[in-house]
This record gives sequence, C-alpha cells and structure tokens, in this order.
Amino acid sequence: MLIEMKNISELMIDLAYSSLIYNNREIAEEVKYLEEKIDETYYRIQEEAIRQAVEEGNVSKALVIIRLATSIEAISDSAVQIADVVLRDIEPHPVIKESIKESDVTITLGKVSERSVLANKTLGELNLASETGMWVIAIKRKGRWIFGPTENTVVLPGDILIAKGPLEGVKHFKNLCSGRDRTI
Amino acid sequence: MLIEMKNISELMIDLAYSSLIYNNREIAEEVKYLEEKIDETYYRIQEEAIRQAVEEGNVSKALVIIRLATSIEAISDSAVQIADVVLRDIEPHPVIKESIKESDVTITLGKVSERSVLANKTLGELNLASETGMWVIAIKRKGRWIFGPTENTVVLPGDILIAKGPLEGVKHFKNLCSGRDRTI
Repeated sequence: MLIEMKNISELMIDLAYSSLIYNNREIAEEVKYLEEKIDETYYRIQEEAIRQAVEEGNVSKALVIIRLATSIEAISDSAVQIADVVLRDIEPHPVIKESIKESDVTITLGKVSERSVLANKTLGELNLASETGMWVIAIKRKGRWIFGPTENTVVLPGDILIAKGPLEGVKHFKNLCSGRDRTI
Repeated sequence: MLIEMKNISELMIDLAYSSLIYNNREIAEEVKYLEEKIDETYYRIQEEAIRQAVEEGNVSKALVIIRLATSIEAISDSAVQIADVVLRDIEPHPVIKESIKESDVTITLGKVSERSVLANKTLGELNLASETGMWVIAIKRKGRWIFGPTENTVVLPGDILIAKGPLEGVKHFKNLCSGRDRTI
C-alpha cells in the first residue's frame, strides 16, 4: 500500500505541474480524483499499521509507517494545491510555465506519428524511462485521457504523450514521437 | 527563483527517501539544511511577487506565483518530515526500505571502480539522466558528501553515487559503476 501511495503521489505532482503548463482542467481534475484514492489508502495504511502494532507489540514500526504515509499524503495535498490554480480558473502566468519547463525535471509533450518507432508498442517494450529518461505520465487519445499508463499500455499513432524527464531528453523524445529519430 | 525552489524541493524528496533507505543521518541533515534555503527563497519570492503586483497592478500573476511557491514549500516540509524519522533515531523498518526500493522511481547506489566508464568524466558529459534514466543526487567521496551535484561535477574512482530512477535502470547503473558495462 505504501508503494501504491508513493507512486500515486509522484504521479499527482507530475500531473499537477502538467495541468499548470498546459492550463488543462481535465488533468487538474484527475489530480483531485487521485487525492481521493490517496486518502483512502492513507486511512487503510494507518488502520493496518496500528492493527499490526497491537498484534506484534511493535510501536516503532507502526510509527515510522504512519509518519511516512502522512508525509506522502502531505505531498499529494500540495499537488492538489497546484492543480487548484487551474481549477479556480486563475490564468497561469507564462513565468510559471517557463519555470516548470526550465527546471531540471521538465514536462513536455509529443504527438505520435504513424511512422514513429513508438507506435503500436507497449510502454513496457519501449522502456522509455530507462532508455531516454522520459516517463510517460499521461496519454490523450481521441479526446480521452489515460492517466498514469502502465507497462501494458500500447502507444498508438495519433496519441499525444505527456512525459516528464531531464531537459536534455526533450528533443530526442519529441523526435521519437514524430518519427524523425528511428532508434530509442 | 521558482526554478531554484522547485529543483531544491525535488532534491529534498529524493534525499529524504535516500536517508530512510540507508538510515543515514548525514543525508537527513542535508534535507534540514536545504529547508532553510527553501524558506529563504520562499520569502524572497513572496516579497518580489507582491512588489511586482503593486508596480504592475497585476493581482493574479502574484497570486499564482505565491500559490505555487507555497505548494513547493509544503512539499519540502514533507521531505523534512520524512528525513526526521532518521534524525529522531527511529529505526526505519525493512518494509519502508522495500517500499521505496520497489516503487516506480527507486533509489540505488553504486561504487565507481577504476575501470568504470563514468570515472573522471563530468556528469554533464555523461548525460546519465537522459541516457539511462538515472539521476545522481549525491556523491560520497572520501567520507564527505556532495549533495545535488551539478553537470560540472567530476565523477572519480572510489566515489559512491546515490541515484534515483526507474527500477529497470538499476542493474545497468550498477554495472556502469563497477565497470562491467562499458557503454552508457
């Protein structure tokens, strides 16, 4: 459950920054939705940790698990705060977009062409994260979103991929999407 | 200043998880130290944003900048909370270590051998983040730490590198450090 919580909170932060960069309400709403999942998992972790503490008489284990879960929950709250800027219809100033785009970990998007080497492969086959540093965090396909795609998600021509990763990885990522770069 | 704040907060989260995995007090203390830098930058951002709002009569720009800075500050607070487990000498239970190690973004370390292809090159030359997905977040060299190394930091034989990145990137990273893998 802690792993799930950590993964979701990290996705939330990435999506929150994405919603701000692209001033996108749907992404911001997904962040809010994920917060509900986090809250539920957080509650279950607390319950389970205390239940085990009672059974095993181990106080410090429960304490450290609850503290970590609390910190992760706080991180996800921050993601909601960031997304909330978009949900409140406050126009994100260009300086915000530039700040996120120019930080060490940036967010970018690419449209997958018919001739892209990414097309019709699963994210698991592509190993983009370990081969290029770029993580696909969301896919827009025919007007609908896939948030937090898994290794089994197939990339299709026409997909718009939102990815995060190092600044130096952006150009290659975009070229892989467009089909200009033929090898990952 | 926002870019700096975002970069530092992300480094803090990574270091906080690292301190927990390796139960390392020095890393945890660095997280606390970075929090001071964040607080200072946060204060300067607020001041500057309001000053510009007064000058330009633009309320929403200041609002969105301050909101973003507040969220980033909250993220860095969470990092301190995580590191605080180590500083309070609570033994992090193995389940914590496993949770962090097995999440999508993991943390690992590698010792740089004499014959490693990483040795005697700068991080900027190596481009590990975009070539392997692994970000070097700290280096231990002759008993001293370099936290948040830059692209100008030279990797030396004997260095212990702490890196974060995708699970699939761990083996290759360790092999690059040991010298087993000869190409990045």
